[in-house]
Amino acid sequence: MLWPDTTERSPDGALVIGGVAVADLAAEYGTPLYLFDVATIRARCRLHKQALGSAYERPKVTYAGKAWVAPALLQLIRDEGLNLDVVSGGELYVALRSGFPADRIAFHGNNKSPDELQMALDAGIGEIIIDNFDEIRLLDELTRGRSTPVTVLLRLNPGIDVHTHDYRKTGIVDSKFGLGISTGDAERAVQAVLDTPGLYLRGYHAHIGSQIFEVEPFIETVDTLFEFAGTMRDRFGIVPEEISPGGGFGVRYEEGDPDVALTAYAEQIGRAATLAAERWDLPSPVLTTEPGRSIVGPAGVAVYTLGARKVIPGVRTYVSVDGGMADNIRPPLYGAVYTAELVGKPSVGEMEWLTIAGKYCESGDVLIERVALPPSRYGDLLAVPAAGAYCLAMASNYNLALRPAVVFVEHGTARLVQRRERFEDLLARDIAPEDGYRT
Amino acid sequence: MLWPDTTERSPDGALVIGGVAVADLAAEYGTPLYLFDVATIRARCRLHKQALGSAYERPKVTYAGKAWVAPALLQLIRDEGLNLDVVSGGELYVALRSGFPADRIAFHGNNKSPDELQMALDAGIGEIIIDNFDEIRLLDELTRGRSTPVTVLLRLNPGIDVHTHDYRKTGIVDSKFGLGISTGDAERAVQAVLDTPGLYLRGYHAHIGSQIFEVEPFIETVDTLFEFAGTMRDRFGIVPEEISPGGGFGVRYEEGDPDVALTAYAEQIGRAATLAAERWDLPSPVLTTEPGRSIVGPAGVAVYTLGARKVIPGVRTYVSVDGGMADNIRPPLYGAVYTAELVGKPSVGEMEWLTIAGKYCESGDVLIERVALPPSRYGDLLAVPAAGAYCLAMASNYNLALRPAVVFVEHGTARLVQRRERFEDLLARDIAPEDGYRT
Repeated sequence: MLWPDTTERSPDGALVIGGVAVADLAAEYGTPLYLFDVATIRARCRLHKQALGSAYERPKVTYAGKAWVAPALLQLIRDEGLNLDVVSGGELYVALRSGFPADRIAFHGNNKSPDELQMALDAGIGEIIIDNFDEIRLLDELTRGRSTPVTVLLRLNPGIDVHTHDYRKTGIVDSKFGLGISTGDAERAVQAVLDTPGLYLRGYHAHIGSQIFEVEPFIETVDTLFEFAGTMRDRFGIVPEEISPGGGFGVRYEEGDPDVALTAYAEQIGRAATLAAERWDLPSPVLTTEPGRSIVGPAGVAVYTLGARKVIPGVRTYVSVDGGMADNIRPPLYGAVYTAELVGKPSVGEMEWLTIAGKYCESGDVLIERVALPPSRYGDLLAVPAAGAYCLAMASNYNLALRPAVVFVEHGTARLVQRRERFEDLLARDIAPEDGYRT
Repeated sequence: MLWPDTTERSPDGALVIGGVAVADLAAEYGTPLYLFDVATIRARCRLHKQALGSAYERPKVTYAGKAWVAPALLQLIRDEGLNLDVVSGGELYVALRSGFPADRIAFHGNNKSPDELQMALDAGIGEIIIDNFDEIRLLDELTRGRSTPVTVLLRLNPGIDVHTHDYRKTGIVDSKFGLGISTGDAERAVQAVLDTPGLYLRGYHAHIGSQIFEVEPFIETVDTLFEFAGTMRDRFGIVPEEISPGGGFGVRYEEGDPDVALTAYAEQIGRAATLAAERWDLPSPVLTTEPGRSIVGPAGVAVYTLGARKVIPGVRTYVSVDGGMADNIRPPLYGAVYTAELVGKPSVGEMEWLTIAGKYCESGDVLIERVALPPSRYGDLLAVPAAGAYCLAMASNYNLALRPAVVFVEHGTARLVQRRERFEDLLARDIAPEDGYRT
């Protein structure tokens, strides 16, 4: 699935998502615009839960907030019954302000600050996923004198390689993340947590990377986590109540990407856990998956306006849009490949190959290297699917670009959830000159 | 020069910049913190002007705002007598609000919107650097009925390759930027501008890339621009009043980088222009260079606090800081290499090799792959030089990180120019839920 579930073309060929004409949204909110199809978000939350639940008796699905968080999204996620993981004080703040129950939040990260940990403790956070020994020491200090221990999982480094961009591999031995099983750190951390009165060790977590299209590495991760859990049970007598093989499920960005059913990951992880629990004679712990991109990625569509066209004979034709690396840095950062369609007409019939450039001042700011589109003109609208994850999350004010408006569409109505940034916002953090700003 | 001009170590080994102890700044403003040495910014503005003026009779130095803009910086740049180039409505807005004279501003960009062009016209901007034919058409429409024509330069694509990261090459034939000389577009654009009553063609510009350590490509660019100018004079009878070979002068990020004197670029460009003007029998036009990075890059220092340490035997030792790719995306984006020193003690004596990781949730978030530092502890401060350009400019709220405070130091005093982002700021653009936010 490349486009949101509700995507259709009207009789005159115009793009309609969530029952709303995309051109109308662009006219009302301007471009670049990010729209999210609520039905797709809901459907993917439910699919993850159902698929994991069909294959395992104690499923838990946690939305990985780093893909994108905003109050409107978090309320959807909460109402769909998912848990949430956050990776910073900022994400925790927004989640709490949005009414996400603290006891359904887990706190990840390789370098949580003392302030962030204190904030999590004060909020009554559900779980802290400990990444390293410094964190155990900090939590020991911060939990002194508390009456109830804080629930923690240990993030393990399982030493598992996956076929993805180097930047997205997180489970290999040489990683800033997690406690190595092979190095003995993981076992030493179990001992250290057991020796810390303020901590209650609930289980083990691993996260092997992102945008992964194979299922085998997840099965291997489940097996490794259960093996470690079984070994620790034998050594220390502790039975894990939760095992989390993390997230990282791939989504399609273009037609050429593998089409792995979202349910395939969940079902196979569930089955692997059932088998592993039997193998190690462990009473079934809660099994947690942490989808982020695979919840919001395919629900989001970026809408741009086509601008300057440059034909370089024998080389290619560039068409620039009114956004680019400030709202979506994934192409230059990861070499991410996107596709696009015109909002006004479907990609059928006569087509031309274009390179879609951004408007920012560097050559790397190319949004799509190569896409076939019907004939287009200055001012036409372009829609880029699979833009829901890690675009807005990493958006910047590069070149003092204004960050886009965000709209949720559902049942034929649109709801603005984040307004476009304004010029005045660009000065929000500057200390005004003594003689003030010019008007 | 790797560190700001005023950098020193106090008798007890502590880092002092602009006469201010960096540790005191970190204590007052928190980390990550970006500090700029005002003396270095001023010195580099003056060096650029003097060097170009020493080799060419009509020099003009324009600060390339895309490296970083903020009101406090723009006032410095203005007071040092430099011009400014902007690349968006946002940069133009901030410049005007900061009191930068509109007639000293040039407007660059490969896809300026109609609104941005109108804004520039309304402000009485000094120059618009036209990138493409769509822009000529737009400006024709927007200047109808104006009594005085708008001054424009044409951005040419000289077809010149340089040794730098692909993302930073902007003057090769296959580029989204500029009007190709070899394709005939440049000459056709001259004709089109001459045919547009609202436009006054002042001259020609090219920009071949950034972080360039060779001087030859600049000389080649100067020669190409003058050759084009001479040819157009012969063909259309127009004598250029301004020629700009752009910017892109390399700065050092680590000891291993070439040490090209800042003045070398300016002097050799100036000499090349003098010769070229004679060769083509052109009365000396204004010669414009556009340094951005080479003004602010070496003036800026990023300060972080060391956090979690992870020793992976036989592999490496990771130490995480409290910032990373949200405030400086250059390492994962370009493979940029930085160095660092401890704020508390100089890099002498016993040292250890470390990898400095960021705190954000992906493996690519490594700030420095390999740096030798004296023994350090959790909570120690780390200073990263050459952090003044393209760090803050591209900073994001990834993982809902708060963007850092920015401080100017000069003559022993510090001045906060941008406050640290606050948690509340993260909700500034969200439409509040109907029942409001939780407190």
